[in-house]
Amino acid sequence: MIRKAEQKAAQERAAQMIAEAGIRITEEETMKIEVVDFGLSRLEIEGVQVLTMVQTDRISVKVLAMLPNQTEPEHWHPPVGEDPGKEETIRVVSGRVYFYVQGENTLKQGFLVKGKEKRYTLRHEIILKPGDQITFQPGEKHWFQARDEGAVMYSFSSVARDALDQFTDPDIVRVVQIID
Amino acid sequence: MIRKAEQKAAQERAAQMIAEAGIRITEEETMKIEVVDFGLSRLEIEGVQVLTMVQTDRISVKVLAMLPNQTEPEHWHPPVGEDPGKEETIRVVSGRVYFYVQGENTLKQGFLVKGKEKRYTLRHEIILKPGDQITFQPGEKHWFQARDEGAVMYSFSSVARDALDQFTDPDIVRVVQIID
Repeated sequence: MIRKAEQKAAQERAAQMIAEAGIRITEEETMKIEVVDFGLSRLEIEGVQVLTMVQTDRISVKVLAMLPNQTEPEHWHPPVGEDPGKEETIRVVSGRVYFYVQGENTLKQGFLVKGKEKRYTLRHEIILKPGDQITFQPGEKHWFQARDEGAVMYSFSSVARDALDQFTDPDIVRVVQIID
Repeated sequence: MIRKAEQKAAQERAAQMIAEAGIRITEEETMKIEVVDFGLSRLEIEGVQVLTMVQTDRISVKVLAMLPNQTEPEHWHPPVGEDPGKEETIRVVSGRVYFYVQGENTLKQGFLVKGKEKRYTLRHEIILKPGDQITFQPGEKHWFQARDEGAVMYSFSSVARDALDQFTDPDIVRVVQIID
């Protein structure tokens, strides 16, 4: 869970990072930035800030802002009814982003979240810089991380149903709970 | 048709506008910018420059760069097989964009392409500034225009099949022909 004050502070940090990355967003969008702690209550370690620009029943466009050294936990987008699952292309706008996918262990420049090594099973490292992009097929597991500079990226995808995403860490609850 | 030299010059202008709009693209992407004259051979009047960032069988992400006072002709995205047609959200990054859609005639700040008034039937004007966006449903007719400052925008959509787009102007050929 996230306290309202913490949510507001993270929204403001994310909005500033997004602006510094050269993406113009409206005041209304700033207030809609979703602050996601995955139910783990330690936002700065495992979390992400998400601005949804487009959300229809066919496509989704989000801007993801990651605080310095924040990690988005290992997850995948499962099939839902007739939908084979979300297909997603992430394109980096600012900062370097450390992605981890299936493949041999090449983890070197990123880090596993301390004490949670078993909940990050993928160790094949792909480092993207601004202007680079990577596509994940439906069901394809991945996790990613920003380092000291933080990062801003676009997520372009088929329809998103975030609440149905699946995570390696059984403690994760995707629907965020905000408290006073 | 477009001469190779004209194509190259338009690519370079578009790449510069995209960079100035704060969108970082790779050298490889610059060389892939599509210069579209709609077969009318007067690019600066009716045309558009298109960088395709993502193209899968589910979604498409493009950056559209429009030269000063360039107009993209009236068109719509028809159904194709089981696909009801392309659903498209355009989000403006730089410059103002003058959109024309179904509705009462409010055309005031944009202009009809001279001598082609019958090929631009929509006159309901919507002016978008950077950070604004508009969504077109499948089959929904639209045309748009940049003014003196030019414009850069994103097009986020379901799968794009540009060659099958339909145009009010029967002289239009969407597949571009490049000559030496």
